[in-house]
Amino acid sequence: MTTTPARRFRTPGADPHFASDNIAGAHPEILEAITAVNDDAAAYGADAASEAFGETIDDIFGTGAYGFPVFNGTGANIVSLQAISHPHSSVICADTAHVYTSESSAPVRAGITLKPQPHHRGKLRPEDVVKVLASDVGNPQATQPTAVSISQVTEMGTVYTPEELTDLCNVVHEAGLAIHMDGARLSQAAAALGLDLHGATTALGVDILSLGATKNGAMGAEAVVVLSNRVPEDVLAPIIKYTTQLASKTRFLSAQLNAMFGTSLWHRNASAANTAAIYLAEGLAAIPGVEVQTPDANTVLAAMPEALVNTLREHYIAHLWGNNDAGLPIVRLVCSWATTTAKVEELLQVLRA
Amino acid sequence: MTTTPARRFRTPGADPHFASDNIAGAHPEILEAITAVNDDAAAYGADAASEAFGETIDDIFGTGAYGFPVFNGTGANIVSLQAISHPHSSVICADTAHVYTSESSAPVRAGITLKPQPHHRGKLRPEDVVKVLASDVGNPQATQPTAVSISQVTEMGTVYTPEELTDLCNVVHEAGLAIHMDGARLSQAAAALGLDLHGATTALGVDILSLGATKNGAMGAEAVVVLSNRVPEDVLAPIIKYTTQLASKTRFLSAQLNAMFGTSLWHRNASAANTAAIYLAEGLAAIPGVEVQTPDANTVLAAMPEALVNTLREHYIAHLWGNNDAGLPIVRLVCSWATTTAKVEELLQVLRA
Amino acid sequence: MTTTPARRFRTPGADPHFASDNIAGAHPEILEAITAVNDDAAAYGADAASEAFGETIDDIFGTGAYGFPVFNGTGANIVSLQAISHPHSSVICADTAHVYTSESSAPVRAGITLKPQPHHRGKLRPEDVVKVLASDVGNPQATQPTAVSISQVTEMGTVYTPEELTDLCNVVHEAGLAIHMDGARLSQAAAALGLDLHGATTALGVDILSLGATKNGAMGAEAVVVLSNRVPEDVLAPIIKYTTQLASKTRFLSAQLNAMFGTSLWHRNASAANTAAIYLAEGLAAIPGVEVQTPDANTVLAAMPEALVNTLREHYIAHLWGNNDAGLPIVRLVCSWATTTAKVEELLQVLRA
Amino acid sequence: MTTTPARRFRTPGADPHFASDNIAGAHPEILEAITAVNDDAAAYGADAASEAFGETIDDIFGTGAYGFPVFNGTGANIVSLQAISHPHSSVICADTAHVYTSESSAPVRAGITLKPQPHHRGKLRPEDVVKVLASDVGNPQATQPTAVSISQVTEMGTVYTPEELTDLCNVVHEAGLAIHMDGARLSQAAAALGLDLHGATTALGVDILSLGATKNGAMGAEAVVVLSNRVPEDVLAPIIKYTTQLASKTRFLSAQLNAMFGTSLWHRNASAANTAAIYLAEGLAAIPGVEVQTPDANTVLAAMPEALVNTLREHYIAHLWGNNDAGLPIVRLVCSWATTTAKVEELLQVLRA
Repeated sequence: MTTTPARRFRTPGADPHFASDNIAGAHPEILEAITAVNDDAAAYGADAASEAFGETIDDIFGTGAYGFPVFNGTGANIVSLQAISHPHSSVICADTAHVYTSESSAPVRAGITLKPQPHHRGKLRPEDVVKVLASDVGNPQATQPTAVSISQVTEMGTVYTPEELTDLCNVVHEAGLAIHMDGARLSQAAAALGLDLHGATTALGVDILSLGATKNGAMGAEAVVVLSNRVPEDVLAPIIKYTTQLASKTRFLSAQLNAMFGTSLWHRNASAANTAAIYLAEGLAAIPGVEVQTPDANTVLAAMPEALVNTLREHYIAHLWGNNDAGLPIVRLVCSWATTTAKVEELLQVLRA
Repeated sequence: MTTTPARRFRTPGADPHFASDNIAGAHPEILEAITAVNDDAAAYGADAASEAFGETIDDIFGTGAYGFPVFNGTGANIVSLQAISHPHSSVICADTAHVYTSESSAPVRAGITLKPQPHHRGKLRPEDVVKVLASDVGNPQATQPTAVSISQVTEMGTVYTPEELTDLCNVVHEAGLAIHMDGARLSQAAAALGLDLHGATTALGVDILSLGATKNGAMGAEAVVVLSNRVPEDVLAPIIKYTTQLASKTRFLSAQLNAMFGTSLWHRNASAANTAAIYLAEGLAAIPGVEVQTPDANTVLAAMPEALVNTLREHYIAHLWGNNDAGLPIVRLVCSWATTTAKVEELLQVLRA
Repeated sequence: MTTTPARRFRTPGADPHFASDNIAGAHPEILEAITAVNDDAAAYGADAASEAFGETIDDIFGTGAYGFPVFNGTGANIVSLQAISHPHSSVICADTAHVYTSESSAPVRAGITLKPQPHHRGKLRPEDVVKVLASDVGNPQATQPTAVSISQVTEMGTVYTPEELTDLCNVVHEAGLAIHMDGARLSQAAAALGLDLHGATTALGVDILSLGATKNGAMGAEAVVVLSNRVPEDVLAPIIKYTTQLASKTRFLSAQLNAMFGTSLWHRNASAANTAAIYLAEGLAAIPGVEVQTPDANTVLAAMPEALVNTLREHYIAHLWGNNDAGLPIVRLVCSWATTTAKVEELLQVLRA
Repeated sequence: MTTTPARRFRTPGADPHFASDNIAGAHPEILEAITAVNDDAAAYGADAASEAFGETIDDIFGTGAYGFPVFNGTGANIVSLQAISHPHSSVICADTAHVYTSESSAPVRAGITLKPQPHHRGKLRPEDVVKVLASDVGNPQATQPTAVSISQVTEMGTVYTPEELTDLCNVVHEAGLAIHMDGARLSQAAAALGLDLHGATTALGVDILSLGATKNGAMGAEAVVVLSNRVPEDVLAPIIKYTTQLASKTRFLSAQLNAMFGTSLWHRNASAANTAAIYLAEGLAAIPGVEVQTPDANTVLAAMPEALVNTLREHYIAHLWGNNDAGLPIVRLVCSWATTTAKVEELLQVLRA
């Protein structure tokens, strides 16, 4: 009975930097936006900021797109997957997908059956989708696939190319399924690809989107965005309520999302994070024994000898991320909008010592 | 596909004031507290503000109490009820309970069976708990009661007296059950009763608490607080994750809760709301045809002729709340920490006209 | 680890007679029908007996009706309610309904929200349905009513008259809802009302039916029967599978149902049970101190002094069923197709002694 | 609205033989046993046959084992997995496991998270269990493994050797997990291994068992059997109720199970099925172009050229079961206790023609 959240999760002495991009605070423009809406207003989204958010979504993602703010990434994913599921449906995903590995029992408790397939550098291949369709569609003993879920940026730090996404969406749509994108780091992916948000989603065939802001400089706000009529209309509002994701003072979420996506903030922050990651990767590559690929976005996966891993973890949380083909442990390091050159140098210095 | 949150929920022309206490913004001390923690920090609660929150809970509610921040009231209630439920358990509540009437399907989807009993001015009586125990305990066809859930302030604006609560808790505990308090407005109740938070909960026998802050001047933060060893230890952390209520940047919730409960803010705001409600009730009582009871806390229920209701609803949302014994419609009006005398006068003027 | 089913449930020394109608065995015609289909055949319902069952349902309940065999009453009810529910819907029922009081957590675990209303001799009144509709329909905080569930025979032994059912169905249908009948004892009700099965269901407006056979002389077989297009088409097959109610050797269920409903067996058995109940009620009424109403079907509720209850329970299970207005305990006694005059006399002798 | 079960599932003209072992009827001794208990008796398992079943389980599986009858294999599996799960647990299985591929959404709807691993001829390897443990145990983002589920006979027709099972159970138990065996065809496996039922389960370390009878000559009856104290005590009874698997006339299930497992019937029937499978395999092996391995039990997997598959499926259902390494389609053919030499010859004749 004496355990507190802090005591429960704290790893004493660990520097949180590079553990994830959610260790950064909120960008000043986000705080300003919150302050600007701090007045009396109708609850549950019937306020001006939430109205503006609706228009922003429509502007960015195309005619007919609509979205609702939610609190966090788990909420965005669970709401999205429920919107494209029914009581005996399944969602096909890579076996590295955050929804499969890192949402605890939230998907199952929401009634979502996942069909994980072997990933290829974090990506799901069209042929693996086809395999599940062949075995399950029309089989009364099996769940019926209604959707495919992918992550952009993937959990392995890679970014689907537009061609890869188009190929996958085509296969998915031809089978009558919808495609969900877990876009917790969509901004970072779009910036890396040189695309705007419409170009990185609607234009490629994405049907429903978990739109992330928290990992890119918001205080805490995400959105579920419906991009196509493959998602039943008007389905989101009740799901958001019964998934416990309805904010009474919605305007404080909407204001963050407006500041992020109604301006260039999403792109500025994402670019800063991606640039820091390249800088970090180059620094790591110069250290003897470290193997690192040029990062697709803001996540750096670096394989290094056990001894270096231990040195690193004396100072940093430095999540382990499997092993490379040579058996060396891989460390995941994530840069954020707030990662400074000085912080990167600090980490490199630890490994150089 | 063109519906936005604003368009969906907006009642055009309606003044949001008095619709609920969640129409008020965040108190300036809350925004200051958020700004003060806006720096890099470990995620998921392993930060200094969340550590301080753990200590604050322990200080306020007594040795051994612990709590976790969550996003909203639905989240606090669902997490709490899951903590005291098992796969074939039930929770006894009044048929006016927010968890029964106003959480959509969230309880059922979380596996919680509710056994609603007829309320008495929003309160649940010990004898109605006894009735359910008599029919269900040991009956292999029935769910097994494991908890009783009450609201303080109740949904009818009343406040359980300490004696009422003690009597109820005694019956509940003698049967081996736990008691959950939906304390979305606990501060307002405690202030009205002249009790501190420990005196209004732990001291009376409450086992687990949905501790509200949003309706009392927070931007958006609630907590689940475990007060007794009738709740299994260490059960909260996984529930919060799988209920989609885990914030990566927990410190922004913890900072709000610290500012609210680590200072006198909870009491100052609640007192202001309660005072405004008395002022409003007195003003309403002076209007011919309006019947209003002295409010227990910050909610005013006023019965009035249909014509007056219509006049009121030309300007205000003014939720209907059933009928009185004479058949007159009852209107619910809620004051907040930010309700000014001028706003009350504005409303009274509408009815006097 | 030593508890066996028998040890768990046994009340030592208790005569099972009159405890329920499910203590009777299977009628000889049922066993004959089972034996007649005991040959190799396609599984999962693709056999001749199941084909014949489909035609029988169509013949009995009207053009377009279709049904599936299931194992037991809980299964029939849960499958039926799922067929007329969605993720944030509710089903209105009497607070005596078997689905509310006696299916443990099966409804909640299947995602079904029940809205129990005060019963009137086991029946649900149209005005109580209207009350729930008024508070919940269109309320984004509430579950949305999609169906009403009634029991015929009710759990209080009463039988809805055709007029009562028509009135209720009209209210339900005008609101766009569907009506489910828990017909675990439909045969007994229909026989008592002098109606055929179509006249007791489809003709009165019932949309989906739990059709009972086990309590009327089957070995173990029930069916879910869809009677109207208010139930989505083709929805039953997957529900039966995921509710664990799909029999691989379906023909052994179908054969029982064919023997029961494809002949007059349902009526012969029900009439025998109803007749025995009247005989029992008359015998009880002649015993000083016992108050008993003429039974509507095969269930007898008898109020009697505590001392007589104790005498009765020395020999019989004799479930208690609340108290009458004078505070006397009520005992429920159920007659079956196999209840003999001798058995009734035995029980009466116990009370006369 | 015109679809009937028969029309829904029928593949016109198809001979059901060899489609599965559940196409056979009930063995005469099963029908005799049912007839023998066809009298008045207490419901819900408080009858003599069910008491005897409890003793039979104890006799067969060892001191302390206990079990409950259920209706079907899906029920047995879902009840078993719920008994060893909690709200954020997971069950590790092979990706061919019936519970993963062939129970539709029943596991997810029961709150069970499955972690499928690549199979090896239908079997799960200890090293794949270890891999999941390494990534998930203690990870607050992941579900927590509480059990491993295996099938014996596997869905690929193979049988785990005692050594393989012991190795797997050791790994599972050292990690503090329980092992569930889906024993829909346990009798066939035990007979093939020359073991009694205790030797094939309890003695090897199995903790909870889905004990199949339907596929080995019962009319329709399975059981959940708890073999060790790794399963919480007294947990089964409520699960069976809320999973919709509680039979009011339990004695008709118990009688079947007593006839099957209280005598040598399980072994006689299983041996007959296994012998028929070997005869079938030898016959197939002699046909040019057909590749078939000696069956471990009663399932024959035969790879053959497309043309032969087509010939076969003109007469038989003949489920396809993937492809062999050379790309040839594999056909699954299952023999039962009732498969005659004449029936095998008929099938071979079709292919020889």
